[in-house]
Amino acid sequence: MSGNPRVAVIMGSQSDWKVMRHAVEVLKEFGIPHEARVVSAHRTPDLLYKYAATAADRGLRCIIAGAGGAAHLPGMVAAKTIVPVLGVPVTSRALKGLDSLLSIAQMPRGIPVATFAIGEAGAANAGLFAVALLANGDAKLARRLAAFRRRQTAKVRAMKLPK
Amino acid sequence: MSGNPRVAVIMGSQSDWKVMRHAVEVLKEFGIPHEARVVSAHRTPDLLYKYAATAADRGLRCIIAGAGGAAHLPGMVAAKTIVPVLGVPVTSRALKGLDSLLSIAQMPRGIPVATFAIGEAGAANAGLFAVALLANGDAKLARRLAAFRRRQTAKVRAMKLPK
Amino acid sequence: MSGNPRVAVIMGSQSDWKVMRHAVEVLKEFGIPHEARVVSAHRTPDLLYKYAATAADRGLRCIIAGAGGAAHLPGMVAAKTIVPVLGVPVTSRALKGLDSLLSIAQMPRGIPVATFAIGEAGAANAGLFAVALLANGDAKLARRLAAFRRRQTAKVRAMKLPK
Amino acid sequence: MSGNPRVAVIMGSQSDWKVMRHAVEVLKEFGIPHEARVVSAHRTPDLLYKYAATAADRGLRCIIAGAGGAAHLPGMVAAKTIVPVLGVPVTSRALKGLDSLLSIAQMPRGIPVATFAIGEAGAANAGLFAVALLANGDAKLARRLAAFRRRQTAKVRAMKLPK
Amino acid sequence: MSGNPRVAVIMGSQSDWKVMRHAVEVLKEFGIPHEARVVSAHRTPDLLYKYAATAADRGLRCIIAGAGGAAHLPGMVAAKTIVPVLGVPVTSRALKGLDSLLSIAQMPRGIPVATFAIGEAGAANAGLFAVALLANGDAKLARRLAAFRRRQTAKVRAMKLPK
Amino acid sequence: MSGNPRVAVIMGSQSDWKVMRHAVEVLKEFGIPHEARVVSAHRTPDLLYKYAATAADRGLRCIIAGAGGAAHLPGMVAAKTIVPVLGVPVTSRALKGLDSLLSIAQMPRGIPVATFAIGEAGAANAGLFAVALLANGDAKLARRLAAFRRRQTAKVRAMKLPK
Amino acid sequence: MSGNPRVAVIMGSQSDWKVMRHAVEVLKEFGIPHEARVVSAHRTPDLLYKYAATAADRGLRCIIAGAGGAAHLPGMVAAKTIVPVLGVPVTSRALKGLDSLLSIAQMPRGIPVATFAIGEAGAANAGLFAVALLANGDAKLARRLAAFRRRQTAKVRAMKLPK
Amino acid sequence: MSGNPRVAVIMGSQSDWKVMRHAVEVLKEFGIPHEARVVSAHRTPDLLYKYAATAADRGLRCIIAGAGGAAHLPGMVAAKTIVPVLGVPVTSRALKGLDSLLSIAQMPRGIPVATFAIGEAGAANAGLFAVALLANGDAKLARRLAAFRRRQTAKVRAMKLPK
Repeated sequence: MSGNPRVAVIMGSQSDWKVMRHAVEVLKEFGIPHEARVVSAHRTPDLLYKYAATAADRGLRCIIAGAGGAAHLPGMVAAKTIVPVLGVPVTSRALKGLDSLLSIAQMPRGIPVATFAIGEAGAANAGLFAVALLANGDAKLARRLAAFRRRQTAKVRAMKLPK
Repeated sequence: MSGNPRVAVIMGSQSDWKVMRHAVEVLKEFGIPHEARVVSAHRTPDLLYKYAATAADRGLRCIIAGAGGAAHLPGMVAAKTIVPVLGVPVTSRALKGLDSLLSIAQMPRGIPVATFAIGEAGAANAGLFAVALLANGDAKLARRLAAFRRRQTAKVRAMKLPK
Repeated sequence: MSGNPRVAVIMGSQSDWKVMRHAVEVLKEFGIPHEARVVSAHRTPDLLYKYAATAADRGLRCIIAGAGGAAHLPGMVAAKTIVPVLGVPVTSRALKGLDSLLSIAQMPRGIPVATFAIGEAGAANAGLFAVALLANGDAKLARRLAAFRRRQTAKVRAMKLPK
Repeated sequence: MSGNPRVAVIMGSQSDWKVMRHAVEVLKEFGIPHEARVVSAHRTPDLLYKYAATAADRGLRCIIAGAGGAAHLPGMVAAKTIVPVLGVPVTSRALKGLDSLLSIAQMPRGIPVATFAIGEAGAANAGLFAVALLANGDAKLARRLAAFRRRQTAKVRAMKLPK
Repeated sequence: MSGNPRVAVIMGSQSDWKVMRHAVEVLKEFGIPHEARVVSAHRTPDLLYKYAATAADRGLRCIIAGAGGAAHLPGMVAAKTIVPVLGVPVTSRALKGLDSLLSIAQMPRGIPVATFAIGEAGAANAGLFAVALLANGDAKLARRLAAFRRRQTAKVRAMKLPK
Repeated sequence: MSGNPRVAVIMGSQSDWKVMRHAVEVLKEFGIPHEARVVSAHRTPDLLYKYAATAADRGLRCIIAGAGGAAHLPGMVAAKTIVPVLGVPVTSRALKGLDSLLSIAQMPRGIPVATFAIGEAGAANAGLFAVALLANGDAKLARRLAAFRRRQTAKVRAMKLPK
Repeated sequence: MSGNPRVAVIMGSQSDWKVMRHAVEVLKEFGIPHEARVVSAHRTPDLLYKYAATAADRGLRCIIAGAGGAAHLPGMVAAKTIVPVLGVPVTSRALKGLDSLLSIAQMPRGIPVATFAIGEAGAANAGLFAVALLANGDAKLARRLAAFRRRQTAKVRAMKLPK
Repeated sequence: MSGNPRVAVIMGSQSDWKVMRHAVEVLKEFGIPHEARVVSAHRTPDLLYKYAATAADRGLRCIIAGAGGAAHLPGMVAAKTIVPVLGVPVTSRALKGLDSLLSIAQMPRGIPVATFAIGEAGAANAGLFAVALLANGDAKLARRLAAFRRRQTAKVRAMKLPK
């Protein structure tokens, strides 16, 4: 997307891409300038801090962070910025994302992380929530989001079941 | 607060107030014009729809919805508006809010709800997240949020443990 | 089936059909006039309300609603009608239907939803429960249900294990 | 209530009364002739069988069965009658009713049990569901149920939150 | 095996055989006269009662009962006999046997069921436990069980790991 | 009780007595010679091994072992004897005995432990199961157990609910 | 304790002291020079990084970190040092420490955190584990640890149960 | 590796090798003299005791023990030695390692086991933690561990996402 990124999509590993690409696709669909990259809370902690600490100045309006297992990425990004952080629990191998969900959602008072559903649906919804945030001050984007929602409604209404 | 409400705090029952007042207190602390009221997904479904459907036109920039058990309120509000919805899982009697958390967080693709922690910490954090949303386009509020965060840091740094 | 539908089978998406068809098959087996369609709580909320609000007048005696994840469909239908609602938790991707079960079963006092097992067995049993409801005032159907149960017993009694 | 009981409320022990009385109170409120008694799946299995097997002939239209832990009562009643069985998971000591919920809800294909929420809310809702079943063929009762729902809505709408 | 059966292996459906055959194989290995058959708590309740009620007189010293989901078979057999009942939680489709385990293990005071692990290991161990019960009054069988255990120990001691 | 102990009741700590005394009380009620003592898997491993290894020679017919949390006592006793071991999951502080239940029930193939319910009911039932084991070869005890069960049934049948 | 601290005990809030003091008491009992302080992952992220990054140079041989809910403290300390980190899941309000346990234990490959039990037992055991680490190269401390273990064994062996 | 083993990797069965080899591979990568073998808590209890009791004298500085289900191996090794024990919960068939995790982590006060993540990541991290323990008194190894961590950071920083 052209222009400075307004939304970032970060994740702890390349292997999270198969989930997190659903957030990126939503941003592309709405034409939101964005960036996507690997930032690991545990393996690149300095990068994480620098990334989060400079997010506001770089013009980011929202950071989508996906992580699995002991999913510390969203919470630690939120600890270093006041830019809204959206957390996506990536499905984990043994516990199927229940650990990821609890690690992201159960933040202590003082540092909020907005948490979405486990896996692909959550990634897509984090993308849509980012659009809604930006639409708050952008009437044109708000109209596009409303139109998206109407099309979505129409698509469901057109669904047919087998006889 | 004076002015039209920018943020709404709704909940399914008066009994949710002991949790949800923590969101309201944050909004008060930051001087955000807001309203708080009881809207029940199951017992006042028409009110819920009307409330959600008119939220954007009434100037609401964000709706905080708290609910427990089969907590449908945040998701159904989100189904009827493009205003960002923040869901707070209220601690439930038998399952201690695990049911509330899953009912709010596990939304299907297409209709996002930003979920926070179970109980009081989640309510306070939803309030702080609402402030962060508004701060996105309000430099003064952003400075106040940053100052709040610095004071919070200072408070923790000053904590002493018994010898 | 000929005649006005007495039972409705609704679900949030075409992808729920592989579970919910087991409810429909039971209704067909007993010759119950029924209808099946996609109604999504989150993506078609107005359709949901209209569908539920007119159910009684259209002569429906029971609504079977299947949903997965944050499964709000059964509870929101129940909020808009006094026609008995039977909820079927559809197996979800990450949490295997535990989220669906809790979202459907843990309804607050005032709006009941009758919940069945996760997945295909639950869908079939919702169908059988619907038959039992109708059989309450229909001696012929009651005899057919009793005969079905006897055949079912006989089938189990005839099961042989390998030596 | 005068007249032959139309609805039965049974439970495995006197200690379940504190939960199950919420079902009885709903039935009283609607003037539904009913009976309530202790029947234990494990400690009075013969009574259970006889009770269930004669339920239809005694004119019962619905049986509400509450049980906790390895809650076999609802399922075993359902195995011996085609009268609709409503199961209420009683809150258990260690696992807070999660065991009760799974033991009641996860019935195999062929023998349905309609399951409600854990504890008092579930008992009250089972009572309301029983009313809805009877209202299916009783226009006067249906009107009373609809009126109850309207009063319930009005009560929530009148709820005030502290300033 | 020749002789009257001393141990019974029952299960709710033919589909449980793939798990429960591991109990039968242990009994065969030790030459314990046994029988195996399908008895369903929910679909053949009368057979279940008769089977359990006559177990002691038929000389059964122990009944192994396998069931999945709302696994009522072991508990209801135990309710109708004083012959020791061993319960095997069969792996269930959605919840992987957690429901089966809780439904079998969480029996109320008064009617015990000895519960084993979920799935094949539990079935095999129920068989071994049955052997241990019989070995209590049978010195020869006790020696054979002790020998089995020594061979098992030797087998593990001989295990080699790849370099 | 006079005579050599036939049943042992062991537990990891004095603090488990409030649960495990329910097993002892059942044994007393039936006049079963027994012993009760503290044996800790983790803090007295040598005592545990010696205790288990000599159990058969000392004439024990059954060992009831209670433990909480990472409840290793029952499984390790079973590893050192062919005397049947009955495990009682003691309610734990944080996880309310779910950890205890899984640690006891999920034994691997080869070493069985018969598991009972979490807490007091499980302890009492382990006692009753021990009685049933001994009753297998003792007609008089079997009659006493049957009489106990009849009294228990009568007690439930006599239960009255409030009007 | 005199001397430079060899072990640090850190926690996210003063309110964690009631759990974490059990680690400190063990260190005191063994005379291990230590320090204890509040360091919050989310509210003092810079302090956390500095603290962890300088731990090795300050001579710390082990860091015990306690945290509850989305317990990021142990993992983030581990991300910034190669000094061994011991994590203690503090009991959380709603989920009783299950969230804390998963958030600490489920670390991704590459950054290990040694996790202990939920609550006080875990804190005490983290203290004992720290002693064991130091005892690896300190024969005198190893003898003291072995003596502690023998006293602990003796204490359990001396436990008496009520008659 | 040449030299007396400093670290042991033990597991309950050959089938655990597919998980536990990840610990061994880390030790090989760092050139740590080690041994790997099958020791089963339940099937070779005497071997387990002897192995643990002689570990210190044989020069072992750390024991990594992997086990699944009712995973008693790590805790029982810890009961018999003061050498630090690292427990790896092996993914179990039905409950995916949740049982293994709780059985290992929830040790009672007095006998610590350091627990790592479920499955392969946990095995690798136990290996890395063992390296960190040894590095405490070995500056050269500490430098190698720090270098490994830097390479790991660099690898993540070099990760590219698809456009």
